[in-house]
Amino acid sequence: MEILGGPLFAVAGAGESHGPGISTIVFGCPAGLYLERSRIQEWLDLRRPGSNKHGTTRREKDKIILLSGVYSEKSSELLGGPTLSIRGVEGEEETETYSAGWTTGEPIAAVVLSASKRSEDYSQFSGEKGEVRPGHTDLVKHYKSKGFTDIRGGGRSSYRSTISDVIGGSIARIWLEETFGTRIISSICQVGALETDFSLREMIRDISEMQSEDWGHALDEIESKLSKNEIRAIDKGFASEAADLIRQTRIEKDSLGASLEVIAVRPPALVGEPLYQSLKIRLMGALGGLHAVQSCEMGDGHEVVARRGSGNNDGIRSTGYVTNSHGGLLGGVTTGMPIYCRVGFKPTSSIPGRQMSVRKDLKEIDFELKSGRHDPCVGVRAGVTLESRMAIELANASFMHQGKQMHPEDFKLF
Amino acid sequence: MEILGGPLFAVAGAGESHGPGISTIVFGCPAGLYLERSRIQEWLDLRRPGSNKHGTTRREKDKIILLSGVYSEKSSELLGGPTLSIRGVEGEEETETYSAGWTTGEPIAAVVLSASKRSEDYSQFSGEKGEVRPGHTDLVKHYKSKGFTDIRGGGRSSYRSTISDVIGGSIARIWLEETFGTRIISSICQVGALETDFSLREMIRDISEMQSEDWGHALDEIESKLSKNEIRAIDKGFASEAADLIRQTRIEKDSLGASLEVIAVRPPALVGEPLYQSLKIRLMGALGGLHAVQSCEMGDGHEVVARRGSGNNDGIRSTGYVTNSHGGLLGGVTTGMPIYCRVGFKPTSSIPGRQMSVRKDLKEIDFELKSGRHDPCVGVRAGVTLESRMAIELANASFMHQGKQMHPEDFKLF
Amino acid sequence: MEILGGPLFAVAGAGESHGPGISTIVFGCPAGLYLERSRIQEWLDLRRPGSNKHGTTRREKDKIILLSGVYSEKSSELLGGPTLSIRGVEGEEETETYSAGWTTGEPIAAVVLSASKRSEDYSQFSGEKGEVRPGHTDLVKHYKSKGFTDIRGGGRSSYRSTISDVIGGSIARIWLEETFGTRIISSICQVGALETDFSLREMIRDISEMQSEDWGHALDEIESKLSKNEIRAIDKGFASEAADLIRQTRIEKDSLGASLEVIAVRPPALVGEPLYQSLKIRLMGALGGLHAVQSCEMGDGHEVVARRGSGNNDGIRSTGYVTNSHGGLLGGVTTGMPIYCRVGFKPTSSIPGRQMSVRKDLKEIDFELKSGRHDPCVGVRAGVTLESRMAIELANASFMHQGKQMHPEDFKLF
Amino acid sequence: MEILGGPLFAVAGAGESHGPGISTIVFGCPAGLYLERSRIQEWLDLRRPGSNKHGTTRREKDKIILLSGVYSEKSSELLGGPTLSIRGVEGEEETETYSAGWTTGEPIAAVVLSASKRSEDYSQFSGEKGEVRPGHTDLVKHYKSKGFTDIRGGGRSSYRSTISDVIGGSIARIWLEETFGTRIISSICQVGALETDFSLREMIRDISEMQSEDWGHALDEIESKLSKNEIRAIDKGFASEAADLIRQTRIEKDSLGASLEVIAVRPPALVGEPLYQSLKIRLMGALGGLHAVQSCEMGDGHEVVARRGSGNNDGIRSTGYVTNSHGGLLGGVTTGMPIYCRVGFKPTSSIPGRQMSVRKDLKEIDFELKSGRHDPCVGVRAGVTLESRMAIELANASFMHQGKQMHPEDFKLF
Repeated sequence: MEILGGPLFAVAGAGESHGPGISTIVFGCPAGLYLERSRIQEWLDLRRPGSNKHGTTRREKDKIILLSGVYSEKSSELLGGPTLSIRGVEGEEETETYSAGWTTGEPIAAVVLSASKRSEDYSQFSGEKGEVRPGHTDLVKHYKSKGFTDIRGGGRSSYRSTISDVIGGSIARIWLEETFGTRIISSICQVGALETDFSLREMIRDISEMQSEDWGHALDEIESKLSKNEIRAIDKGFASEAADLIRQTRIEKDSLGASLEVIAVRPPALVGEPLYQSLKIRLMGALGGLHAVQSCEMGDGHEVVARRGSGNNDGIRSTGYVTNSHGGLLGGVTTGMPIYCRVGFKPTSSIPGRQMSVRKDLKEIDFELKSGRHDPCVGVRAGVTLESRMAIELANASFMHQGKQMHPEDFKLF
Repeated sequence: MEILGGPLFAVAGAGESHGPGISTIVFGCPAGLYLERSRIQEWLDLRRPGSNKHGTTRREKDKIILLSGVYSEKSSELLGGPTLSIRGVEGEEETETYSAGWTTGEPIAAVVLSASKRSEDYSQFSGEKGEVRPGHTDLVKHYKSKGFTDIRGGGRSSYRSTISDVIGGSIARIWLEETFGTRIISSICQVGALETDFSLREMIRDISEMQSEDWGHALDEIESKLSKNEIRAIDKGFASEAADLIRQTRIEKDSLGASLEVIAVRPPALVGEPLYQSLKIRLMGALGGLHAVQSCEMGDGHEVVARRGSGNNDGIRSTGYVTNSHGGLLGGVTTGMPIYCRVGFKPTSSIPGRQMSVRKDLKEIDFELKSGRHDPCVGVRAGVTLESRMAIELANASFMHQGKQMHPEDFKLF
Repeated sequence: MEILGGPLFAVAGAGESHGPGISTIVFGCPAGLYLERSRIQEWLDLRRPGSNKHGTTRREKDKIILLSGVYSEKSSELLGGPTLSIRGVEGEEETETYSAGWTTGEPIAAVVLSASKRSEDYSQFSGEKGEVRPGHTDLVKHYKSKGFTDIRGGGRSSYRSTISDVIGGSIARIWLEETFGTRIISSICQVGALETDFSLREMIRDISEMQSEDWGHALDEIESKLSKNEIRAIDKGFASEAADLIRQTRIEKDSLGASLEVIAVRPPALVGEPLYQSLKIRLMGALGGLHAVQSCEMGDGHEVVARRGSGNNDGIRSTGYVTNSHGGLLGGVTTGMPIYCRVGFKPTSSIPGRQMSVRKDLKEIDFELKSGRHDPCVGVRAGVTLESRMAIELANASFMHQGKQMHPEDFKLF
Repeated sequence: MEILGGPLFAVAGAGESHGPGISTIVFGCPAGLYLERSRIQEWLDLRRPGSNKHGTTRREKDKIILLSGVYSEKSSELLGGPTLSIRGVEGEEETETYSAGWTTGEPIAAVVLSASKRSEDYSQFSGEKGEVRPGHTDLVKHYKSKGFTDIRGGGRSSYRSTISDVIGGSIARIWLEETFGTRIISSICQVGALETDFSLREMIRDISEMQSEDWGHALDEIESKLSKNEIRAIDKGFASEAADLIRQTRIEKDSLGASLEVIAVRPPALVGEPLYQSLKIRLMGALGGLHAVQSCEMGDGHEVVARRGSGNNDGIRSTGYVTNSHGGLLGGVTTGMPIYCRVGFKPTSSIPGRQMSVRKDLKEIDFELKSGRHDPCVGVRAGVTLESRMAIELANASFMHQGKQMHPEDFKLF
């Protein structure tokens, strides 16, 4: 099943790159959370191709419509979303969609429209003699599905499927912030061979020690900087150099890898199942298993291998851990320290140059992409997806923990 | 999670009675099945209120739009569904939806629009002083959700949620028929105190012994009769008497229970996990757990209690079981005999008369429904939902069985 | 997966009828519950064949050993269970097992030993020419597993597998009683054609209205009566007649069906997911899907079909529901009223007489059981298993409900 | 639930470090696989502390007993395992356990005994004033469980729990080798700051091009070398230097991190769900989420970030991929190339030196471990656990794939 997270908070997704739309159902948001379509839209806008100067030139509006799971006694507020209509030979139907309301605990459904594309425009990839794009899923999916694949833009394996991640993640993070004050942010820390030496993680370390009134403000400032810089990296100089590198690489008809830091600040403590469904397993899987990712590290990551225990164990004081080499999780359970991951993306597989490849019948060819836009660096807009996945798993683990902390007064009717 | 079936074939649903629409995602349909929107629509039409003379007077079109999971190289065929558009302050978007194509193995998303209702029209049920309808979920859901419920027509607990069951079931039964020749039908066998003495089960028993060319035809004839009779009961005389009884009961401002037979004819054999996830557990749950159902029987059902083993064990010959007291499952595994369930529905809870009830703050009242249509007999259109749930579980169990029958040639790429 | 309940409270089971033992792992019991091996043993003793005069003559000790999941600082208490040892060519190992302690939230493992039987004693059923017992899973499992089945006493499909249900159920009911005061009991209400006209349900109705000090005492009395009567039926006269009937049927080399009432008294309210994973789906599945069961009813069950809504809806007063036709669940959520199910068992399939059957290669034979004990009426000891399954699902649903009732103070470390 | 893998092939585990034993249930092994206790034992021996000169000095026999899921008509073979007995106040019971047989498709249960330890020996960690070991789960589990934790050796969070991983993995890899010829091996590639420059991955690359008769032999040779070298690293010189470093570090009362390569050679192609349950998500989670792991990389791992697409995309020829930067998975589906992961472990948290810590009531202390053995380098014996987890996920994904490749002839009974 195409389900992210769960069993208590989970996101189901469906929809291909160039089909009619991406459909999403979010399960398990508790009743009583105030949800506004516009807030989810803000995060979707960060994910959207064309939302920055360095991504693909594909332009889509990616407007979310909400179909279920919220309610308000004020109809104007509840039904203030876009009007949805269908029109066909059987006539027309029309309905108002949701704009804002309180969650009811029921599943929340959303749709983001795409512009359906005609199969005929993808003849390069069509049929038994269709060409295979190196680095993509074209070949394995063709054989796995015995030829029944949607060849338009990679079908469901496209990055467009992450719309569902972001919608689910948005709801999770609104809930996490409202319940625990948790916020999740990310910053690009490497583009190709270019590395920043100014880490978001260190900034967060300082902020974490602030009084509670101040730190929200400090995070707002960080987010504002991330938005202003040329790419979503906290280091302005690096962001600008990296942007140049991306521009140059696009001109050279090539692509670049990237690496990102993702941090949950002020997460709930004590969250996570200890072993086989631990939050560590879940986060390493959800972040490390995203399209195009090839590495995932927690806390001090690969660096700890070269250390000695005496230099790696995080000392403990009465107010918390002295350091955070562990990255917010010990034994798969949250310590309350920031949850920290670093994720490495391969360079975008779609490149305009000539490459060794085959047709789907395995006949060898010199492959050249006939048309199509591409992201020279997929990492440039992957941050919000990583944040979303972290939020989904953290929310789910929180409900799992609460489920075993009994309050019999919650079970009374009369 | 709002998931029916699974883990290999499953249906996720979302959407309230009077919200913008019902959203459905069907997981796990294998690649290569030819799927037409129009066939799913036929089953949805059977479920639709207003599809017969004896249901609620609510009129909805219930037109399905398909958003993902199928593909065809012929664009006119693939994109021949209704045009979907959204229109709001941010502008307009429009896309063609799917009409027909081959499944790709990816999740299949569908939406059925409703007409969003204004909360203000439901003031009888609104807030802490809102009235509670006896027999409904109003009270438990109000307290479970701490007041955050959608009160319009029962919210998600409405029968309208079964749209997802029927969409998922439609895909399952198309697959089952194409793969194994399996067909699933049902017939109403009791309405209130009125019982038929002419059982669909016996007709099927005879048909099962036919040659394969003939039995499909015989089933077509049965379905044609079910459509023509006043209610979907195979016994014409009973159907007509029951219809009279329903009409009369509506006039008397009361409601009636009903009982249905559901049968999978020519099911795949050897399907079902043996114990804790057995197909028996799954079917008893899926059928017996449907809204308003209070009893579920398999094979000869409650009747077997009064029997002796010598009279109940089904003898076996080289060509099959001599009788089918077991109802198609032994030890939770299919024997290839028809799978047979009988399901009893309570009388519709919504009735116009005066009843003892409370406000949500538990203050006692004489409750009287101020307005709203109702089904005097919910069983009249429940058949297609029961068939759908049986199809979903049977398809899922088939994939589970296949998963352990290894064919290494299915794992070759080069 | 052989998992009952879940995802938050679940039981995994393994082990065949005549293998070395039945292995059980119980997941999701919260930390801090005091658990004694001896209490679980009491319920296991009720399940044990040979525990009454009317079951099979098979004699097994069914002593539980606890291997994990509890802890106590008093070693004598913790390690006071039987000594477990293994002895083989590689030498000997020995360890103390658990007797009592507080649960740690970690999985609780248990083993119940059987006496491994030699395959040679089952030659009647062995190989391609092995004989098939009518009413059993012999044939379907032989073909499902391509001949690789354990033929000793039905292998895993034996009633012996319900040891895991009872162990899991014991832990669930200890937790339910400690947390909510919930207790679960059952009574046999029909044996063959013989029906009681004195229902446990009515007794419970009266008790439910008592003050809390009294009802525990009243339930103790009921349980004491159930133990004293010839079979576990609350109606002494019926119990004694039924016992005679069972004795007589054994002499006549035949078997009998049975029907049981199962009731959760004072269950937690507001528990259960609304639709596709509703507690109704779960209970109908878990109880209705047990070996040999052919019917399951909730509340007033099949009887409601013949009623009108005005006579079936349960009125509501400020202190609770006036009646309980609904059986404790509305829309799949508990109302706080007793949860009530009635379950019908077919007559035991194993009977000594001659029957039409086949060999596994489908050659027809006159089948006659060469040896082996049997239960003339399987219902006589099924009550504790039904109670256990109800407890498991009710506990799981309670954790699911709690998981969405947030208490941020449960997430603090420093 | 403490479940690894699944839903089709899965391992459930239970048991604490110093409790009576570790209990394991393996679900979903298909019927008809010949399974010998001795082969599983071989892998368990690799995991066992004390199995090499550089691990902890803890000595345990770790002998597996098999309790279910296999069958053989030869009783001497089936029942040739150790004799299991329990002895207590209620008397004695004894049974033979399984030695070898064919799997029946039913769950396979196993127990490995430990020597139950007395709580009194752990007074340093006991109660509200118990001391907290830095780098361990002591503190989070104490608060998560409200003080109800098993403090003996870390309880269930001990590495001893990986016995279940290895048992499940053993069965998975026997099945994978028999079905596809797949084999899984690993090699230590870094210990502390010491890195090998001779990678197992390159050796495998050459072997992969061999004829099928030869490669099995070549892998046998590699495994033989791994066994002979001082630690399980293919590079003899590095193994010997690393062993010296570990010895020295033990003397210095400190610990070391380590990094391992894990490879599945000749895996089945086309295996893995595409997105949210992709094999990449599963492997990154299962390997990257193991105790003490802080980083996980697939294929060329973090290195790809610095590359350009033109240098990273793996070219394709008619006989396979030219390179394997992708590490055997594209879009979460296997390509048939070796599946390759690199996993980084932190230095063992248990070290004898003085560290900043707290009591469980958060009072600050200078912590010093009073007694207890420790592994100076946990990576030295983690290989077999990583291999096992890879095998479990690969087997599960294979069954998932097969489940959608229909062969209607597998569904015939009569």
